[in-house]
Amino acid sequence: MKKGLAHYKVGDVFDAYLMVKASSKSMASNGKPFLNLTLQDQTGDIEAKLWDCSPEDEQVYTPQTLLKVTGEVNSYRGKLQLKIKQIRPTSELDGVRISDFIETAPLSQETMVEEITKYIFEMQNPAIQRLTRHLLKKYQEPFFTYPAAVKNHHEFVSGLAYHVVSMLHLAKSIARLYPTLNTDLLYAGIILHDLGKVIELSGPVAANYTLEGKLLGHISIMVNEIGIAAKELGIEGEEVTILSHLVLSHHSKPEWGSPKAPMVREAEVLHMIDNFDAKIIMMDRVLSKTEPGEFTEKVFALENRSLYKPSFEKEWIKK
Amino acid sequence: MKKGLAHYKVGDVFDAYLMVKASSKSMASNGKPFLNLTLQDQTGDIEAKLWDCSPEDEQVYTPQTLLKVTGEVNSYRGKLQLKIKQIRPTSELDGVRISDFIETAPLSQETMVEEITKYIFEMQNPAIQRLTRHLLKKYQEPFFTYPAAVKNHHEFVSGLAYHVVSMLHLAKSIARLYPTLNTDLLYAGIILHDLGKVIELSGPVAANYTLEGKLLGHISIMVNEIGIAAKELGIEGEEVTILSHLVLSHHSKPEWGSPKAPMVREAEVLHMIDNFDAKIIMMDRVLSKTEPGEFTEKVFALENRSLYKPSFEKEWIKK
Amino acid sequence: MKKGLAHYKVGDVFDAYLMVKASSKSMASNGKPFLNLTLQDQTGDIEAKLWDCSPEDEQVYTPQTLLKVTGEVNSYRGKLQLKIKQIRPTSELDGVRISDFIETAPLSQETMVEEITKYIFEMQNPAIQRLTRHLLKKYQEPFFTYPAAVKNHHEFVSGLAYHVVSMLHLAKSIARLYPTLNTDLLYAGIILHDLGKVIELSGPVAANYTLEGKLLGHISIMVNEIGIAAKELGIEGEEVTILSHLVLSHHSKPEWGSPKAPMVREAEVLHMIDNFDAKIIMMDRVLSKTEPGEFTEKVFALENRSLYKPSFEKEWIKK
Amino acid sequence: MKKGLAHYKVGDVFDAYLMVKASSKSMASNGKPFLNLTLQDQTGDIEAKLWDCSPEDEQVYTPQTLLKVTGEVNSYRGKLQLKIKQIRPTSELDGVRISDFIETAPLSQETMVEEITKYIFEMQNPAIQRLTRHLLKKYQEPFFTYPAAVKNHHEFVSGLAYHVVSMLHLAKSIARLYPTLNTDLLYAGIILHDLGKVIELSGPVAANYTLEGKLLGHISIMVNEIGIAAKELGIEGEEVTILSHLVLSHHSKPEWGSPKAPMVREAEVLHMIDNFDAKIIMMDRVLSKTEPGEFTEKVFALENRSLYKPSFEKEWIKK
Amino acid sequence: MKKGLAHYKVGDVFDAYLMVKASSKSMASNGKPFLNLTLQDQTGDIEAKLWDCSPEDEQVYTPQTLLKVTGEVNSYRGKLQLKIKQIRPTSELDGVRISDFIETAPLSQETMVEEITKYIFEMQNPAIQRLTRHLLKKYQEPFFTYPAAVKNHHEFVSGLAYHVVSMLHLAKSIARLYPTLNTDLLYAGIILHDLGKVIELSGPVAANYTLEGKLLGHISIMVNEIGIAAKELGIEGEEVTILSHLVLSHHSKPEWGSPKAPMVREAEVLHMIDNFDAKIIMMDRVLSKTEPGEFTEKVFALENRSLYKPSFEKEWIKK
Amino acid sequence: MKKGLAHYKVGDVFDAYLMVKASSKSMASNGKPFLNLTLQDQTGDIEAKLWDCSPEDEQVYTPQTLLKVTGEVNSYRGKLQLKIKQIRPTSELDGVRISDFIETAPLSQETMVEEITKYIFEMQNPAIQRLTRHLLKKYQEPFFTYPAAVKNHHEFVSGLAYHVVSMLHLAKSIARLYPTLNTDLLYAGIILHDLGKVIELSGPVAANYTLEGKLLGHISIMVNEIGIAAKELGIEGEEVTILSHLVLSHHSKPEWGSPKAPMVREAEVLHMIDNFDAKIIMMDRVLSKTEPGEFTEKVFALENRSLYKPSFEKEWIKK
Repeated sequence: MKKGLAHYKVGDVFDAYLMVKASSKSMASNGKPFLNLTLQDQTGDIEAKLWDCSPEDEQVYTPQTLLKVTGEVNSYRGKLQLKIKQIRPTSELDGVRISDFIETAPLSQETMVEEITKYIFEMQNPAIQRLTRHLLKKYQEPFFTYPAAVKNHHEFVSGLAYHVVSMLHLAKSIARLYPTLNTDLLYAGIILHDLGKVIELSGPVAANYTLEGKLLGHISIMVNEIGIAAKELGIEGEEVTILSHLVLSHHSKPEWGSPKAPMVREAEVLHMIDNFDAKIIMMDRVLSKTEPGEFTEKVFALENRSLYKPSFEKEWIKK
Repeated sequence: MKKGLAHYKVGDVFDAYLMVKASSKSMASNGKPFLNLTLQDQTGDIEAKLWDCSPEDEQVYTPQTLLKVTGEVNSYRGKLQLKIKQIRPTSELDGVRISDFIETAPLSQETMVEEITKYIFEMQNPAIQRLTRHLLKKYQEPFFTYPAAVKNHHEFVSGLAYHVVSMLHLAKSIARLYPTLNTDLLYAGIILHDLGKVIELSGPVAANYTLEGKLLGHISIMVNEIGIAAKELGIEGEEVTILSHLVLSHHSKPEWGSPKAPMVREAEVLHMIDNFDAKIIMMDRVLSKTEPGEFTEKVFALENRSLYKPSFEKEWIKK
Repeated sequence: MKKGLAHYKVGDVFDAYLMVKASSKSMASNGKPFLNLTLQDQTGDIEAKLWDCSPEDEQVYTPQTLLKVTGEVNSYRGKLQLKIKQIRPTSELDGVRISDFIETAPLSQETMVEEITKYIFEMQNPAIQRLTRHLLKKYQEPFFTYPAAVKNHHEFVSGLAYHVVSMLHLAKSIARLYPTLNTDLLYAGIILHDLGKVIELSGPVAANYTLEGKLLGHISIMVNEIGIAAKELGIEGEEVTILSHLVLSHHSKPEWGSPKAPMVREAEVLHMIDNFDAKIIMMDRVLSKTEPGEFTEKVFALENRSLYKPSFEKEWIKK
Repeated sequence: MKKGLAHYKVGDVFDAYLMVKASSKSMASNGKPFLNLTLQDQTGDIEAKLWDCSPEDEQVYTPQTLLKVTGEVNSYRGKLQLKIKQIRPTSELDGVRISDFIETAPLSQETMVEEITKYIFEMQNPAIQRLTRHLLKKYQEPFFTYPAAVKNHHEFVSGLAYHVVSMLHLAKSIARLYPTLNTDLLYAGIILHDLGKVIELSGPVAANYTLEGKLLGHISIMVNEIGIAAKELGIEGEEVTILSHLVLSHHSKPEWGSPKAPMVREAEVLHMIDNFDAKIIMMDRVLSKTEPGEFTEKVFALENRSLYKPSFEKEWIKK
Repeated sequence: MKKGLAHYKVGDVFDAYLMVKASSKSMASNGKPFLNLTLQDQTGDIEAKLWDCSPEDEQVYTPQTLLKVTGEVNSYRGKLQLKIKQIRPTSELDGVRISDFIETAPLSQETMVEEITKYIFEMQNPAIQRLTRHLLKKYQEPFFTYPAAVKNHHEFVSGLAYHVVSMLHLAKSIARLYPTLNTDLLYAGIILHDLGKVIELSGPVAANYTLEGKLLGHISIMVNEIGIAAKELGIEGEEVTILSHLVLSHHSKPEWGSPKAPMVREAEVLHMIDNFDAKIIMMDRVLSKTEPGEFTEKVFALENRSLYKPSFEKEWIKK
Repeated sequence: MKKGLAHYKVGDVFDAYLMVKASSKSMASNGKPFLNLTLQDQTGDIEAKLWDCSPEDEQVYTPQTLLKVTGEVNSYRGKLQLKIKQIRPTSELDGVRISDFIETAPLSQETMVEEITKYIFEMQNPAIQRLTRHLLKKYQEPFFTYPAAVKNHHEFVSGLAYHVVSMLHLAKSIARLYPTLNTDLLYAGIILHDLGKVIELSGPVAANYTLEGKLLGHISIMVNEIGIAAKELGIEGEEVTILSHLVLSHHSKPEWGSPKAPMVREAEVLHMIDNFDAKIIMMDRVLSKTEPGEFTEKVFALENRSLYKPSFEKEWIKK
């Protein structure tokens, strides 16, 4: 038996447990309804169609339902598709749990809490440190479970915190090479930059945009949170303005969501580190599914580019 | 004697009082210093050069100094320039006051307070009414004295409040023709949309951008203020989000400063009314200085267009 | 029984008369032909598929055919679709007429003729008045029946005249607040700005673009008509040029179809009023089909935005 | 003595006749007025400054005044400038005429009339031929004297007709290689495409834009003229529409002034030939003033490019 | 019997030989596989679907397989589609050859070799002549068989050489009218400008992009080849740089693939001639399939325009 | 005495040695010539005007001439300007050398040679290692003395090598955090990416663009060099293509000079590291001249932004 969806290819026979990630009803050209299912395990996901579905099927095959599926892997418009032979919801007898099917950050929450705490302790400016600690504490629970995005990069449980930890490590390495950087500001900016996502998004799994997310966006939400926190802590002065600016400008350009371009050195660096970590993660993800000597599928968030994996690359193990 | 700077033409002899609006030192090509002065009265302003200035002159000719000037009006690169013959600071004996030289909104502050209060009383949604009243009260003083912008439109004392009053009247007329509009939202959005300028700008006269203005901008500042006000008043619910959205989106496009496009009908209407009033004001201003059958100077904020005043236009009286 | 298509929701049973708006043949993936029908009544339209259609069906189900239909309302890719159970063309016995199924402007033609005539009488410049009256008379019949556009806004019988009447009312309100506006020019520009559409489009119902429409466009067509009218009436002078300019520039930017940007104040105002009325109408249309607390479908002509209807909005009655 | 302005370099002594092309008054930094003169002969033009000018000088040194000048050629900001030593208006005794100082097309008007007549005779479609002949006759005089543009290319006496003759020859060569082209349409389009410039511009020498030129532009003006001509000649049918389309679309893109892109093959070819002839002329003009192995000055109408003349180019004689 | 695919219309019965141009497998909405076939003869191609295909069918219906097909021509989404009744691969008995089904340039390879050789002999600059001859010789075989592009224009056997021959003729005509052009440079630029396509593309028929094609592109490939050739021939000096520049800049703008804009006159002319020939060919191709009085299908490479064929056009014979 | 130009402010008296960086002649508005000088020492540069200059002065004050200057620091249009009191060229007696006035990389050439050699030794792929070593050796001398750019960043002696060393250190740090990166490719790409500048630019000091630089650019030049090197070393295979692609794509977008976007992970990372190092250097440079609590001058290469130095920043020592 294969280890997970990511390892199946066209023609493989499939017989294993999967979780419903998304489900929508369509009408076939013969007038009969069917379900478009997206099924997942911890290694990836795949499309499948359930033909001639009944009204009951619609009730059953909803997100986070666990299934036993047998079928065959086909290709449809250049993407894999699972041709279902047999399918049934699991019962207690199957002994499977939702948490076995959800992709999670490669670090445990405890480790990430610890790491981030260390960076906060390193901060020397009391205003910056207090604001950061206060806001992280206020939203600690969702911060350590939410994804960093709905799609594109870090769209897994705890993806937000994992992205922040990676960026902090990168910032530390860079600050060693460019010692003029103010690490207090930079670390605080990294920890807070995407924290507004815990209000913008609906939850840690299968996240959608909330009303505030759609009408205001995580950047304005977070600038607002910093203002309220400063009020509550009685902190005044430039640190509040500068930290708000780091959050406000971290997408760098108006058309990418930042009404102000970075005007403080650490704001520019925050933007570059954010971009760097997200791009590396996206590239690694598609390349890990690609053989040496081949091109990846097109990646929307990389301006729709298709990447080439040199044939002289040694195969690396998927993390 | 002419009634004010706006009525002078090339060749006219000038002999009257003026106020220094701006002053900067340059070096002539013969190596001697001179002052570039911008001089104003209530009807407009004009450039002038003070040749061979002494260090004392630099100290004397600073903004808001009142002067007695005689000279002649010339043209330089298509703009009027005052060739100074005699110039001196005024003394008490001249009997002139700064307020005589500053352009002010055509309505008194009392009238504007009254007008705006009426619109607030018309609001029926208590959350919207309380938020608007609270914020207007908090910043009442600067709101009724600040300009609406550093340049381009309504850049005079009380320009901000005057712009808001005009927009409210326009909104009321429109809502009569399109009765589905929610006037509570629309009036509140109009009153609050530019209120952040009292923090973004430095003061009612000769305004500059503050640090918060430069790093955050009046839109983010105001969204923030709404959040803090809602917290203080204990108001929760969609009204806060929608009102924040109206402020956030009132520039309509990311490249014009709004990270979110209008997604509520009244937000779109607010943007159109804001644009409408500002454009009319800018057009009237340049056209009032132009003869029928001629083109105006280029107007930067109207995409650098030069407007034509038809020769069959009856001359209108400058307000 | 429901009052019209606009009031049906997913799951509703349908049993009423409808008119064919559009029809095209496709081939199902089983190789059999079927018809894609768009069916309408005065309140809106809906898609439906007629499976396994015969060659005779193709002949029968053509635009403006009246039908008796029973079926059920489903959802397909986020849009409503009528699943046909029974369908037949109507006979005289059914007692229904085409005019019962065509959306028409909410004002009668007589009322609109009267309103527009009043505005023409208000004009004081004889050249402007004569040109306007001449051109309106020349194209009176199509002007009062054509739609204002093929899609997006005012795409109903007499939509063009209705759009003009609304704009005239708006112009009058605005001119009261901004008295420097030249209402002769503005009213004439409003009446003539889209008159070229009676040549650009093929007819009042199910309009398409004519050859002149495609190769020249309604703006150039109308500028041309003004030139010919001036010749015929023996009118010379700036009024002809300025009025042509108002028509030429009313889309404001080259990429929107105007080779010259507005360079006369009333040209700019004409553009803003045109834009304002069209946007309000489009927004009201989608919002009238949306429940408070929900987002509308995406609106192409509003830069593909989806609008939100606040949950604190009182339901309003569709006009 | 040198043969003309085009042959002078920095350091050369100058002693010859010149004509005033343009004149404007400025104020030196010592407060004294001076005149900025542009002086020309048939080979080119040069800037010069007349220091400490009197009010009489202003009256004398106006466009098309002939002068006797001695001085020295200097360089100022990368452009040549004539340092005036002596300067005086000419009298009859000097025996010079304005026509000796104005650049004119390299073909005589008679030759061009003849050439264009031949192309009109070749047309076989009577509607196209009659329209072309009628319009050319109506504007014959200005057509054969006006420049093709105010600046950039063919900005000399008879430049418009010369540009048309060159394009006709090019069209004929191309039609021989691509025989599917309809030469009736193509020749007519070439002859008429810029004819609107006789209304857009003020005259054959030192041309400016007229009011119609600024508010409507030569493209709309000409489309209008075709409509009126068709009316007068009683010509109806597709030829009128297609010919109007050729004129309307000859700038190819909205942002270049054409509200419709070319949708007829000959319209596309007309655009390409127009572009081709204009670019070659502009390139030859700057290259003729440049030594092999050097770059030309930047050419605004060639997207501000600077062209390189290969050092292996044989020097060619300026036409 | 009709003469070729280009002459069939909706409703025609089809019974003739065709070649498979492309084939891909899809899954019908009933879950059964089918093949999307593109079938061609020398006059054009058509889509067809082979329902319920077996795994053997997939092996058989691959590019360049010859078939005997009977069926009927239908229309699907505005494009013709062949409804297959009977289909079988051919055997030797059918007496058909692949070369009968492949579109080829209208000139023989021998003729094209001769023509191009003549142009090379006309070159007088020895460096330019040697470089051109060397590179043409090195890639002679693919140069005379490859297409000029994968799609859009000249996408047939020997299309590359045919495009070059047409451009050379055009260049010669133009140089007669504009004698300052350096024909050595221009001819060499034309011959070499697309030669990199023999490395960028995979072969003369059904061409794809190679790895070098995707990662470097034909422009960089060719600049590289010129550098290597110069090294091998021991040629130094400006000719190498200028010729490289002509190739590098022939797409004119960065966003079209040229990192440098044309900065030499012949580079600009090369770009315009390339563009001219490609556009004429694309327009003739779609217009040859269109009746007078109709619009063509949209042409992607002409900015998605649809062209109109005037109804007064005489039908021309498809070359 | 101050330590260098970077430490002078408005009003300071100046008395020290400087080197001429650039010199150009202008004409004052009184008709007399003067020289615009840019003077530099190792810490920065400043503008100065030499009034009433003689022809001899023009000969004397040329780039790299050393001067003794006394004067006063003024401000002109927001930039510092040195008002010259006394000025003379130095003689041997002054005991100053050009090398004392030229800014140089903060690392010695020996150190940089050593560092880069270590990175080359770490490479394991022999093709990549040999190509890199060969090209570095071929251009070793200019590589270790040229600047990285004519302006904006690293525009000092050995700036190119210093930029490469910094990027290599950054790459090493990053590869430790993201272990899937292929460091062979990445290091080779870093070392070669800008090597073409040794042909694009004229020399290590006061660099200009060569003809090849202008017509081809350093990217195409270097791709060419890799092709020739591979030929000479007899290296074939994907390594050559991939390495060429890294150089070709390192500006990331066509409009920034890369005809192909990065399509290999290390190409994307190379672009980000290049961008990162250049931006940090530019920001540090302007911030080092700015007091806490102030904005820097606008930086063209940072999209003309002005950066703010927080007032809570501790002053850092300029490196």
